[in-house]
Amino acid sequence: MDLAAKLADVVGAGYVLTGADASEDYSHDETLSAEPVRPAYVVRPATAAEVADLLRVATEANTPVTARGSGSGLSGAAVPRENGILVSFDRMTKVIEIDTDNHVAVVQPGVTLQELEDRTAEVGLVYPVYPGELSASLGGTAATNAGGMRAVKYGVTRHHVLGLEAVLPTGEVLRTGGKFVKASTGYDLTQLIVGSEGTLALITEATLKLQPRVAHQATVLAPFADLDTVVRAVPKVVGSGLAPLILEYIDAMTMGAITYTADLQLGIPDQVRDTSQAYLVVMLENRASDRLDADVEAVGTLLSELGAVDAYVLPGPSARKLIEAREKAFFTAKGAGADEIIDTVLPRASLPQFMAKVTEIAQANESFVVGCGHAGDGNVHLAVFQKDTEKRTATLRGLFEAGMALGGAISGEHGIGHAKKHYFLDLEDPAKIDLMRRIKQAFDPAGILNPGVLFD
Amino acid sequence: MDLAAKLADVVGAGYVLTGADASEDYSHDETLSAEPVRPAYVVRPATAAEVADLLRVATEANTPVTARGSGSGLSGAAVPRENGILVSFDRMTKVIEIDTDNHVAVVQPGVTLQELEDRTAEVGLVYPVYPGELSASLGGTAATNAGGMRAVKYGVTRHHVLGLEAVLPTGEVLRTGGKFVKASTGYDLTQLIVGSEGTLALITEATLKLQPRVAHQATVLAPFADLDTVVRAVPKVVGSGLAPLILEYIDAMTMGAITYTADLQLGIPDQVRDTSQAYLVVMLENRASDRLDADVEAVGTLLSELGAVDAYVLPGPSARKLIEAREKAFFTAKGAGADEIIDTVLPRASLPQFMAKVTEIAQANESFVVGCGHAGDGNVHLAVFQKDTEKRTATLRGLFEAGMALGGAISGEHGIGHAKKHYFLDLEDPAKIDLMRRIKQAFDPAGILNPGVLFD
Ligand SMILES: Cc1cc2nc3c(=O)[nH]c(=O)nc-3n(C[C@H](O)[C@H](O)[C@H](O)COP(=O)(O)OP(=O)(O)OC[C@H]3O[C@@H](n4cnc5c(N)ncnc54)[C@H](O)[C@@H]3O)c2cc1C
Ligand SMILES: Cc1cc2nc3c(=O)[nH]c(=O)nc-3n(C[C@H](O)[C@H](O)[C@H](O)COP(=O)(O)OP(=O)(O)OC[C@H]3O[C@@H](n4cnc5c(N)ncnc54)[C@H](O)[C@@H]3O)c2cc1C
Repeated sequence: MDLAAKLADVVGAGYVLTGADASEDYSHDETLSAEPVRPAYVVRPATAAEVADLLRVATEANTPVTARGSGSGLSGAAVPRENGILVSFDRMTKVIEIDTDNHVAVVQPGVTLQELEDRTAEVGLVYPVYPGELSASLGGTAATNAGGMRAVKYGVTRHHVLGLEAVLPTGEVLRTGGKFVKASTGYDLTQLIVGSEGTLALITEATLKLQPRVAHQATVLAPFADLDTVVRAVPKVVGSGLAPLILEYIDAMTMGAITYTADLQLGIPDQVRDTSQAYLVVMLENRASDRLDADVEAVGTLLSELGAVDAYVLPGPSARKLIEAREKAFFTAKGAGADEIIDTVLPRASLPQFMAKVTEIAQANESFVVGCGHAGDGNVHLAVFQKDTEKRTATLRGLFEAGMALGGAISGEHGIGHAKKHYFLDLEDPAKIDLMRRIKQAFDPAGILNPGVLFD
Repeated sequence: MDLAAKLADVVGAGYVLTGADASEDYSHDETLSAEPVRPAYVVRPATAAEVADLLRVATEANTPVTARGSGSGLSGAAVPRENGILVSFDRMTKVIEIDTDNHVAVVQPGVTLQELEDRTAEVGLVYPVYPGELSASLGGTAATNAGGMRAVKYGVTRHHVLGLEAVLPTGEVLRTGGKFVKASTGYDLTQLIVGSEGTLALITEATLKLQPRVAHQATVLAPFADLDTVVRAVPKVVGSGLAPLILEYIDAMTMGAITYTADLQLGIPDQVRDTSQAYLVVMLENRASDRLDADVEAVGTLLSELGAVDAYVLPGPSARKLIEAREKAFFTAKGAGADEIIDTVLPRASLPQFMAKVTEIAQANESFVVGCGHAGDGNVHLAVFQKDTEKRTATLRGLFEAGMALGGAISGEHGIGHAKKHYFLDLEDPAKIDLMRRIKQAFDPAGILNPGVLFD
């Protein structure tokens, strides 16, 4: 039997796509710089047992396997191999359980963030991880350790994945963790698989921690004369104890572009806008509306002490639109012709030094760099405009080096994938890379899971 | 040169102890059932470079190495090997930095929780992980992933370790993570080392996340007629959104013992006390005292709705004494002749079924089992009284099996160590154990780090 027949044997003939049937969609994620690749086979399993069987078949045939959630990733990690199998989780989309007593959701990997948002809202709970793209899958967000704007209050995906069902390339189905919030019972396999970009195991189920949904929210927008003052304000807002749900910076260029694209009027006087080089967006939430009002007041005072030109409490619809426009900043940058997006993370108090470096590096390489970011987390999202590959590479390398020199890391939430692999392998401590390779070997001795991602 | 001379070469002759100089203290932790073992050598390094060198020497000599923090562990994981080296971190006790901008502390592994508590209090920050024994070291708490009463609000050690300096048995010194709260840049080595009980690497520095210290706290004590009603109330209190700092249950027997030992009068009327089989302790905190007062009010109402006989707001000194007495419950149980302490963790809503099972299992094995626990986390601390080894083993095995059958894990925070290893190896999925062994191999190919802990 050839490989296609063996795969069809596992999932049913209708669920193995080859040639033109394996649509163009499966050949890429959203990464700007990654080359699309059409896989030899797209396989759409329905159960963990099918995933296990197909991995056994792939191991036997020594064929590379790439997992795909919604393909919204920004590191190229879901781009398959030409001779390989793409495992699409678009048939495993069941919310298995919303457990309101334990505050957990149990989901199949293909469930989207939007679906989980809707289902948890019905029972007054929330899965508080909101990366900008709600079509992303829970399997994909677990595999990239996705973050998003609310991480400053609630943490990232890692902090919400309590357990997994995951299949090793050798076909063993493991259950890690469970519906409990802590354990000291052997190595934490859950945490190791989270963020591993499909290189260690395929996730077939996730147990996720939910939170009580908080009733009242308010958004404050503060323009600042310059970016340096904004980023210097960030640690003070975090340190205030007001526990912002969102704490984003947006530079003037990006603010102009995203509000223009969204056709959004924020009611900021022209004169203020024209003299503001950056903005801080602070969203607060509280169970009680009077407490929220008091906190909004306190944040306003704090921001003006920290040098804001002014502070506006945005009306609900404008606030929602601004957050949405910020979420879609990636597409705005893409539309404007950006050549790459990066998401370096730093110690939050090193943002001012980093932003100064960004200007230097952009100039030195004749690149144009603008951005926004999860400032509360020290996570900077920069759009790099530079068509010339060599100059772009030099710009990126410079930015990553600068971030690491300040104690940061290459990616805060998008992952390494193919797109940032060479920088990662170049700039990281070789002893750490070697150790990671040995860990990879412990999970995937034949090296069939997402080869070319993270490692060469 | 013999091994002692080589070790002396690394750390200086005065810092290698052998024979009677390696005091009895080094032969045990606090585990009730673990046999003390005197190591061949106690080595007291002062720097990461010394740790690296001594690990190279140990690897070359194929000699087992056990790390020791404060020896307060409850799994026997710091008990050395007879022919082995005990590495004591009692000379690496420097708080390297309290970074008030980034909200992190950088500490050497021998720093105690008490020292960190004092140093962070000075600057209005807090390291919110409070396992019951504040003499525990940060290296030890990282290696066990220690929890404690405040985990219900802030999470456990794992959620606060942002980065490590750690030395592999082959002598490489790695730096993982950093002063940032998230990253998606390769496998999360920090999270893998946390909770690994000294079997993967020796921690020589930890970067820890701090929180703003909250000004106001209040403690509510609620007696209940029976344990079942208490544990059924737990998910509702967690779900209320009141975000308790502490949510403990204490059974009547344990409450009697710990308050007697601490000579503590709680002012509960005799009649209430005599008819109460269990208690819930709820501590709340808030930045604003008026908000705290309102929350205390709300908790009182909620508890009476949930079946509490009454609810008392404890005066500050009594509250502190009660929490302290609860922290020392282990020593009370030990003083009363307990033979083993376990800390099974469960889905919080499965506590009622588990507690029913506990009674059954205790009766079937003629054991006496009482306890308390971090109810908000589903983490039950049980003292088992049974002198007969066979019956005790059957009791423990029954309890662990029952916990796992309900979706829980053997240990919530104390770890597996030597004490629970056989249950762990018996009851866990062999495919998971095998994978953990391969991970161990990736870090420690010669198997010199804490052999006999976790694995045989
Ligand atoms: C407009 C926009 C805004 C965004 N904003 C953010 C943001 O704010 N924060 C953020 O973190 N990200 C953001 N992203 C990136 C993206 O949404 C995340 O990376 C997301 O986690 C990808 O999920 P996915 O299902 O699309 O995964 P894919 O792109 O399909 O896959 C991502 C990785 O996960 C692996 N994978 C997928 N499913 C599985 C599985 N079941 N088992 C094992 N591995 C699997 C893939 O192999 C690949 O390595 C944004 C993307 C866009 C387009
Ligand atoms: C009265 C009492 C109450 C307690 N209450 C709690 C509680 O509420 N919650 C809780 O979680 N625990 C509790 N404990 C258990 C204990 O405090 C924790 O396990 C603590 O983490 C142990 O720290 P230690 O420094 O004493 O570690 P040790 O006992 O010295 O060592 C513990 C483990 O860590 C390893 N280790 C130590 N230092 C290093 C290092 N630098 N690098 C690598 N490995 C290292 C050791 O090899 C061993 O495996 C309690 C203990 C007592 C006595």
